[in-house]
Amino acid sequence: MEKEKIKIGILGYGNLGKGVEIAIKTNNDMELVAIFTRRNPQDIKTVYSKNVLNVSEIEKWKEKIDVLLLCGGSATDLPEQGPYYAKDFNTVDSYDTHAKIPEYFEVMNQSSKEGKKVSIISIGWDPGAFSLNRVLSEAFLPKGKTYTFWGKGVSQGHSDAIRRIKGVKNAIQYTIPVEESVEKVRNGENPELTTKQKHLRECYVVLEENADKEEVEKEIKTMPNYFADYDTIVHFVTEKELLKNHSRMSHGGFVIRSGYTGMEEKNKELIEYSLKLDSNPEFTASILVAYARAAYRLYKNKEYGAKTILDIAPSMIINKTKEELLKDLL
Amino acid sequence: MEKEKIKIGILGYGNLGKGVEIAIKTNNDMELVAIFTRRNPQDIKTVYSKNVLNVSEIEKWKEKIDVLLLCGGSATDLPEQGPYYAKDFNTVDSYDTHAKIPEYFEVMNQSSKEGKKVSIISIGWDPGAFSLNRVLSEAFLPKGKTYTFWGKGVSQGHSDAIRRIKGVKNAIQYTIPVEESVEKVRNGENPELTTKQKHLRECYVVLEENADKEEVEKEIKTMPNYFADYDTIVHFVTEKELLKNHSRMSHGGFVIRSGYTGMEEKNKELIEYSLKLDSNPEFTASILVAYARAAYRLYKNKEYGAKTILDIAPSMIINKTKEELLKDLL
Repeated sequence: MEKEKIKIGILGYGNLGKGVEIAIKTNNDMELVAIFTRRNPQDIKTVYSKNVLNVSEIEKWKEKIDVLLLCGGSATDLPEQGPYYAKDFNTVDSYDTHAKIPEYFEVMNQSSKEGKKVSIISIGWDPGAFSLNRVLSEAFLPKGKTYTFWGKGVSQGHSDAIRRIKGVKNAIQYTIPVEESVEKVRNGENPELTTKQKHLRECYVVLEENADKEEVEKEIKTMPNYFADYDTIVHFVTEKELLKNHSRMSHGGFVIRSGYTGMEEKNKELIEYSLKLDSNPEFTASILVAYARAAYRLYKNKEYGAKTILDIAPSMIINKTKEELLKDLL
Repeated sequence: MEKEKIKIGILGYGNLGKGVEIAIKTNNDMELVAIFTRRNPQDIKTVYSKNVLNVSEIEKWKEKIDVLLLCGGSATDLPEQGPYYAKDFNTVDSYDTHAKIPEYFEVMNQSSKEGKKVSIISIGWDPGAFSLNRVLSEAFLPKGKTYTFWGKGVSQGHSDAIRRIKGVKNAIQYTIPVEESVEKVRNGENPELTTKQKHLRECYVVLEENADKEEVEKEIKTMPNYFADYDTIVHFVTEKELLKNHSRMSHGGFVIRSGYTGMEEKNKELIEYSLKLDSNPEFTASILVAYARAAYRLYKNKEYGAKTILDIAPSMIINKTKEELLKDLL
């Protein structure tokens, strides 16, 4: 174990940044040295940290931070911030636009190799812990099918899509696994499932005054990509109800590998990894912090460049010695 | 991906060795080149392999085998075979005497380093996949408790212990998780559980003629370490019933991490990894074969010495390119 504490910086102070701030407290080999924001530092109310700085000052902190946790969003923040800061800092981020991960990996790899730093990308639970389980379970059971179910939990992307509809004041969308399909998978039936058969979408919508209820509902249900391929339930609620009943950040989901062994695929083998989370951002943050430890250790080993969760040995992320692992956890 | 197939040898042809033979078939980057046995090769009935040799010939195969899978038992075979063969072969084994893993690691590390080979020890599901999940989930959630439950499945050690009792002809013992305790853990109650509260033991016993039923039952239930600390149910059955109803090799279990995030440990987060296996030895064998791939790759990278499942990046065990992983599985 490291004697000196690992010095962590946070860039971006939303739900994820706040989660990281809190998670560092539960890791006694780390300390938070600074939070950087694009906003006016005076406007930021942290949980405990007193050192909030404008991002314009970050260059001065290059030598004082071991790992910078990039807590911005995947749509616009990370594609820009990632390659920019990966030259000067070891980084960990939660880049989660699945389709663009290969190109994001490329730019991060180039940038971090150039700066002789380590960048760990796409950390969290999906991509992240779920990816790890998809890979491990397919390697353990090459014959079989893998199913990923998400929920019940709020999808920010889908909630935002509803909010963009004319006449909608606010909205929350839950992604919910279809219980009947989950049961078939757990029974080892290996069904072919359509999009509609895997998840259902439940929406709580606050209308603007004078908005056309039926028109809004129709627009939601027929929205391509987001809702058209699903069974969608729409509830209209008051803003007060929405804030009271639908502002929790719980989420969850499961990865199931249903495979076979034996010469005639005689034996069924089922691997299930499941998460039940009260706080999606706090749990995600907690995983980011574990991989900050790996970034620090990889950097010490001079293993520069971009890495994903798949490239990192489990022993690298835990605050235990090799002896403790062999004795207590293996 | 490797163009040449990885050449696998099997040492020891019991249930595990047979499972490995079958599992190789489902991995198209591997081929089985030889099975070695201490018995007379003519007495071995394989599933498909035609090349069964006496172990005395193994030295001639040093250059023709990339990875030797040691399929002997942990009690007497592996402590002797492991360090002996680790000098000349890359090896994977399923050494599972938890208390002695640190010393086994030491001798395997010394031997494989000396021979410039790679030895991956203690592979399977516990130790193995369960160890991996204990480490990952504790790293993800440093505050919390980890619970491991096994079963329902046969424990060979406990079955053997019953068979050694005078008057017992044959016996099978099932380890069964206590459902009530599992539910408490899943509810995030973080109970303190005694041995008795975690598992119960159910035994099916065939008596010798004239054996004293009550005496046998008493001896089982009071046996130190094995049964005395548990609730134990004993059924007496005929040998025919035992063979008919209790010779399946199904098993399973789960690792649950019940943790907290947030400043006042406000939010509960639950991670569960569960296995439902029709064939314990075939699933174990399937994992061994995946780690044979890692042994081969680590050897190519000259990363000599002993490793455990905790030291190996997930991408090392799967037959996919880096590009496929980034695109399809992350």
